[in-house]
Amino acid sequence: MALLYLIPTWPSDIWTTCMRQQAPDIDIRVWPDQMGPLADIEYAVAWLPPANVLRSLPRLKVIFSLGAGVDAILKDPTLPDNVPIARVNDPDLTMRMTEYVVLQVLMHHRQQRRLDENQRNRLWDSFPTHAASALTVGIMGLGVMGTDSASKLALLGFKVVGWSRSPKTIPGVECFAGAPEFDSFLERTDILVCLLPHTPETTGIINRETIAKLSRKGPFGAPILINAGRGKQQVEKDILAALDSGALHSASLDVFETEPLAQDSPFWGHPKVTVTPHVAADSDPATITAYVLGQIRRHQAGLPVENLVDRGRGY
Amino acid sequence: MALLYLIPTWPSDIWTTCMRQQAPDIDIRVWPDQMGPLADIEYAVAWLPPANVLRSLPRLKVIFSLGAGVDAILKDPTLPDNVPIARVNDPDLTMRMTEYVVLQVLMHHRQQRRLDENQRNRLWDSFPTHAASALTVGIMGLGVMGTDSASKLALLGFKVVGWSRSPKTIPGVECFAGAPEFDSFLERTDILVCLLPHTPETTGIINRETIAKLSRKGPFGAPILINAGRGKQQVEKDILAALDSGALHSASLDVFETEPLAQDSPFWGHPKVTVTPHVAADSDPATITAYVLGQIRRHQAGLPVENLVDRGRGY
Repeated sequence: MALLYLIPTWPSDIWTTCMRQQAPDIDIRVWPDQMGPLADIEYAVAWLPPANVLRSLPRLKVIFSLGAGVDAILKDPTLPDNVPIARVNDPDLTMRMTEYVVLQVLMHHRQQRRLDENQRNRLWDSFPTHAASALTVGIMGLGVMGTDSASKLALLGFKVVGWSRSPKTIPGVECFAGAPEFDSFLERTDILVCLLPHTPETTGIINRETIAKLSRKGPFGAPILINAGRGKQQVEKDILAALDSGALHSASLDVFETEPLAQDSPFWGHPKVTVTPHVAADSDPATITAYVLGQIRRHQAGLPVENLVDRGRGY
Repeated sequence: MALLYLIPTWPSDIWTTCMRQQAPDIDIRVWPDQMGPLADIEYAVAWLPPANVLRSLPRLKVIFSLGAGVDAILKDPTLPDNVPIARVNDPDLTMRMTEYVVLQVLMHHRQQRRLDENQRNRLWDSFPTHAASALTVGIMGLGVMGTDSASKLALLGFKVVGWSRSPKTIPGVECFAGAPEFDSFLERTDILVCLLPHTPETTGIINRETIAKLSRKGPFGAPILINAGRGKQQVEKDILAALDSGALHSASLDVFETEPLAQDSPFWGHPKVTVTPHVAADSDPATITAYVLGQIRRHQAGLPVENLVDRGRGY
C-alpha cells in the first residue's frame, strides 16, 4: 500500500519526512519523480493536482486535502468521479484560524494601526475608544472554523452574527441562512469576516453590492473587511474602490485573486490594508500528517473516513 | 451633598457632563475653580490629587479612583487617614484590559510585526509557525483583570501560568504565589504579562534579574514582555539592554517610568517594541461614572462601598 504526495506547489520534504517518521510501514511516493508502480497507490494527499494524475491511479481509495478547503482539488477537470475526497478538520487548524480572526478583529477594534502610526510619529495621544459590545462582527461561513471564531469573539464581548448556506445554531450568535437572509446579515455587520468555502456560489461574493449593504452605524462609521476564506471570493477592484471612497473603513486580507500577490498590487502599500500571505490557518505538517494517517488507519480498519466532501455542494 | 472632580491631569468636561446627566440631583464640583462650600463635599473622584485638597474637606466620606489603580492617590502625603478609598472594578474596564492583553499576545505569537515588515517590503513569505500551546503566557497579578486575561488566553489554546501575592485558584491556569514561588513562575514563562498593582513591593520588579530568569525554551528562543501594569514596575534601562542583547525577544509597553513618554525615548523607534500610550484599559466615562454613582447610592443607602483599598497592602 502506498500514499502519494501530489502537491506541485509546496516543497515535499517537510511533509514526506513527517509521513515517513509517523508511518514507517507506509510507502510514501512523491509526484512526479517517485511514483513507483501506480497500482500500489491507495491514498493521495493532493493540492492543485496536475491533470490526469489522480485519474491514472487504478486503486485509489481516498483523496485527502491537507487543508480545510478542497477547491484546488475539485477544479481538476480530470478528477476521478468515484473516489471520495476528504478534507482536514483538525483542532489545531481551527485554533489557528480563530487566532487570526481574533487578532485581526482586535487590531481593528483597538485601532492598532493608528497607534502604530502614532508610535512612528512619537505621538503620545489617547483618543476616545469604544467597548467591544459597540461592534457587531458578522461571520460568513459557519463551519467548524466560523463557529469557533464566532464563539471566541462573543466571549471577548463582541456582538456576533453569522451567515451560512444552511441554518445553524450557535449559542450567543444570531444566525442567518441562505440568500433570502443575506441582506439582513449584512445590515447588522460592522466587521465582515469571510470564512466561506470556495464554491461557484461564493465566487465574487465580496463585491460592491455586498459592501454597500454593510452597516454604517458602527463606531467607525464604515464597515471593515477581513477575508481569510479564498481570494476568488473577493472582487479586488471593488474593495479598492470602496476603501478609496470611504465605503470601507479598512481591511485585513489573507487571500487574493492571484497568489502570490503581485509585486505591483496596490494592496501592499495601501494605508488601510493589512496584507498577510495566506497564513491565517497554516497547516502544521506534523499535526496534519497525524490527522491524515489517522484517517487512513480508520479506512484500513473498515471505518468511514471523516469530513468527506459533498462534490455537489463543493465542500 | 456634593461630589468633587479632583483630577488635574484630565479634562473635566466629558466626566462632569456624564455625572450631571446621570445624577442631576448631585451637585458636581470641579477643582480648583468650582469648589463651593467645602462642607458640602461628601465624595471625591481623584487622580494625582494636589497636596492638602482632600485633607481640606471636612465631611469627605469616600474617595474614588476612576481606574483599577490607586497608586496616584496613595502617594499624596497629605491624604486624610480616615477616609476610605475605593477603586473601580467594572466589567467594561476588565474586558478592555483583556482585549489589550489578548491582542498583544496574539501579535507576538503570530509574528504580526514580521508580517508588517514583509508587507512594507512587498514580500510574500510564509515562515514556519507554532501552535498557541507551544507558548506559556505568565501573568503577574491575578486580580479581576489578570484572572480574566488568563482565562481567555487559556481558551485560545495558550498554556497559562500566573503569579500573585496571595495564592489563587483559576481553572486551567497553574498559579504560583509570593516571593518563594516567583522564580518557578518566571522559569515557566515565555511571554510575561504584568498586570500588577503598583506598590512598594512591585516597584522595579521587571528588571535585569527577573528577565534573566524567564524561559528561553519557547519557540522564539527568548522571552517576550507585555507591561500593562504601571511604568514604575519596569526598569527601562534593563529592558533596553535585554532587547539589545537578545535576552528579551520583543516587548509591548503601555506604561512607562515617566508618562507621557519622552520624545527622545529609545522605545519609540525601537524595532522590537510596540509602544501604546497608557490605553490598555481606558476608562469609558459613561460606564465608569455609572459605576461610581452606583457606589455613592449604595453608600447613601447605608450599604458598604465595594472594592475598598487596603492601604497597608497598597491596592
